[in-house]
Amino acid sequence: MKDLAKKLGANIRVKRKEVGLAQDKLAELADMDRSYIGRIERGEMNITVEKLYSLAIVLKCKPKDLLP
Amino acid sequence: MKDLAKKLGANIRVKRKEVGLAQDKLAELADMDRSYIGRIERGEMNITVEKLYSLAIVLKCKPKDLLP
Repeated sequence: MKDLAKKLGANIRVKRKEVGLAQDKLAELADMDRSYIGRIERGEMNITVEKLYSLAIVLKCKPKDLLP
Repeated sequence: MKDLAKKLGANIRVKRKEVGLAQDKLAELADMDRSYIGRIERGEMNITVEKLYSLAIVLKCKPKDLLP
């Protein structure tokens, strides 16, 4: 499952860059700490489905589009 | 987001019944506590993406198919 977190984090990073957001802006808009976003993108966090939805809203995509 | 947990739980319950599994069997196969499965299905839990994947494996579906 470690692999899952890494792939999910990578997907979030790719989508974040696609929509032109810096980590701190994504963190602000998703109401999360910037360092938390960094850890998510590095695959260090096992996020909840709720956080997945919060990120997808800011990244203007469907939550399932972020899933590996 | 409360609504998210309720819808996700309902989807998991529908899929569980579709594949003919009782809660305790799903719990056993997904390596979770039976009462935890009950709380997930009632929308009382904000599960992790990792747990979503574990459940999808047992329910023989794609994780995204369980997402509302």
